[in-house]
Amino acid sequence: MKALRFHGRNDLRLEEVPEPFAGPGEVKVEVVWCGVCGTDIHEYQTGPSAIPSSERAHPLTGGHFPLTLGHEFAGKVVELGSGADAAPIGSRVAVEPLFRCGDCDFCRLGEFNRCVQFAALGLHADGAFAQFIVVPDYMVHPIPAAVSLEAAALVEPIAVGWHAATRAGVGPGDTALVTGAGPIGLGSLIALRALGASRVFVSEIGNGARARAARELGADRVVDPQVDDVVATVLDETQGAGVDIAIDTAGVQPALDAAVGAVRNGGTVVSSASWEGPAEVDLRTLLVREIGLLGTLAYSSEFADVLASMESAGPAIVEALVTKRVALSEAIEGGFDELIERKDDHIKILVGPDRTADARAFDDP
Amino acid sequence: MKALRFHGRNDLRLEEVPEPFAGPGEVKVEVVWCGVCGTDIHEYQTGPSAIPSSERAHPLTGGHFPLTLGHEFAGKVVELGSGADAAPIGSRVAVEPLFRCGDCDFCRLGEFNRCVQFAALGLHADGAFAQFIVVPDYMVHPIPAAVSLEAAALVEPIAVGWHAATRAGVGPGDTALVTGAGPIGLGSLIALRALGASRVFVSEIGNGARARAARELGADRVVDPQVDDVVATVLDETQGAGVDIAIDTAGVQPALDAAVGAVRNGGTVVSSASWEGPAEVDLRTLLVREIGLLGTLAYSSEFADVLASMESAGPAIVEALVTKRVALSEAIEGGFDELIERKDDHIKILVGPDRTADARAFDDP
Repeated sequence: MKALRFHGRNDLRLEEVPEPFAGPGEVKVEVVWCGVCGTDIHEYQTGPSAIPSSERAHPLTGGHFPLTLGHEFAGKVVELGSGADAAPIGSRVAVEPLFRCGDCDFCRLGEFNRCVQFAALGLHADGAFAQFIVVPDYMVHPIPAAVSLEAAALVEPIAVGWHAATRAGVGPGDTALVTGAGPIGLGSLIALRALGASRVFVSEIGNGARARAARELGADRVVDPQVDDVVATVLDETQGAGVDIAIDTAGVQPALDAAVGAVRNGGTVVSSASWEGPAEVDLRTLLVREIGLLGTLAYSSEFADVLASMESAGPAIVEALVTKRVALSEAIEGGFDELIERKDDHIKILVGPDRTADARAFDDP
Repeated sequence: MKALRFHGRNDLRLEEVPEPFAGPGEVKVEVVWCGVCGTDIHEYQTGPSAIPSSERAHPLTGGHFPLTLGHEFAGKVVELGSGADAAPIGSRVAVEPLFRCGDCDFCRLGEFNRCVQFAALGLHADGAFAQFIVVPDYMVHPIPAAVSLEAAALVEPIAVGWHAATRAGVGPGDTALVTGAGPIGLGSLIALRALGASRVFVSEIGNGARARAARELGADRVVDPQVDDVVATVLDETQGAGVDIAIDTAGVQPALDAAVGAVRNGGTVVSSASWEGPAEVDLRTLLVREIGLLGTLAYSSEFADVLASMESAGPAIVEALVTKRVALSEAIEGGFDELIERKDDHIKILVGPDRTADARAFDDP
């Protein structure tokens, strides 16, 4: 079968690899849609970062590069290993790509994103930019009938935002700022809205696809930080009070500073961005204003909630987020390179089967 | 009456000032013990920092320097203004020194430490290094019969630690690290123990009064960061897991780094130290390990709990924390300068009446 494999920085290759088979407790999925994630781009451009080298193979999965990328995906079950029963053959599934060591305190509590041997498909084991993938049974979530496979492939990035919003403790009536309107920022916006936030501000540079998507997905105001002062705007529109919650998905110093500056006394800033180096944090401000700064990683129990919310919101979310569909054979130039070169035009590019035009046919029962 | 007044950096003066009287809703207290706080030292050495100048008088209190310092105190009620009824004349009281604008969202919620017009006695209005002080009725807490005035004067710094431990969400069985064994660090240790922590590590430089007090107050292990690696020690003693909570009261980069390094995945770091400049925070670590970093300021509802806990723990806490008693007339050299010059020998210096030897007589009914 074909697979898109990472061999090192700037070295992605479309290769022919053996088709995997489902061992005990495993499910074989025919991949239909798999989104290109910022993390994939990051590994491609500046990695290997999270992806282990062969000298440091992952202790839980044994994975190391060369390795197939891809962890935001949905498809159809084509084979079940013995004991695997999360979904019947032929059914449509979304896959939560986190492994579980099953042995640490966090796995015992169901906090799989905190597993001391944290590992994910597409980073620490072969991922889903391929025709087929084999995954542990526990990763598999059946997709409700009303949810398309495209929407299901978006569940992963939206679950990251859902977890960030949940970790911030959002509740009905809360106000929020999201910095950055990439997939995680938009996922945070979607989650904040779904969980009852009354007003959500979004900051995003320029007036391209991302700012537009934020408006479509219910941002009350989108602020361009190169035009307007984000903190001043938020304070002005909240009668000087500030917002209850800020979620920073931009991961640059001005965005973090805006997040801290925009929350009320006692407010919460969630950081869900991948920083390259250390950030400067004004701990004196955190102290005198009793602000909490919470790191957040992936998701633990959010997949089911996001899948359920997709039953009504799915079409609008696909419409707002998916800016291109590309076939696996063309995914390097038409997916990865396109996202790097024309960042302003894109939010989420979905990679599909080589006959991508037919991919929607997989949604037929 | 005599009062110790701040006129600017390195300029404290013992002056004769008019004795105040209690207006409507106010209580006049004869001060018996008032502790010298790190904040007082900070203002003396490098201020004015929190203390307003006359051009920027505090909007709520109108206070500015010259101003009487002192906000950790207990004494006896000697006069009640009309409508004041928190404690009868002659009764012993501790004073919670935070003003309340009464009008902001936070005051309405009882989160007085988050008041948008935050103000404290001794910083934004005349404090308690004086023979008498007049305070709003709502600041007054009657002292249980079994609690001495010395113990009551320690309630304020311990309440800061109690609030930090509460904000960290400490519960029975939790493990913790406290960096710094000054009054706030020791207050945090006391609170963590009282609220059920099963193991508490403390880091403190050297083996002087502070390290000794930490041991006396129940630290399971005191680590000298100039001798042992704090993170390695904590990880070693927790089978690699790390602690649930770290409270940083040291406010220096290595202590913050140790706090972040010593907590488990999903753990909480509380920062209750006063930083001079920005800190470096490795947000990538906060993210991949889902660590929360919470600023914490003062206290909101902890005075009553700390006073109640003093009924049994008071004598041991006074014994461990109070390293000197000095008369008001001698407080500049014998209190402030002594704390600066012989920092290693002291934890808390209490300033008492000029006949300090007799101060304990105030505890007689």
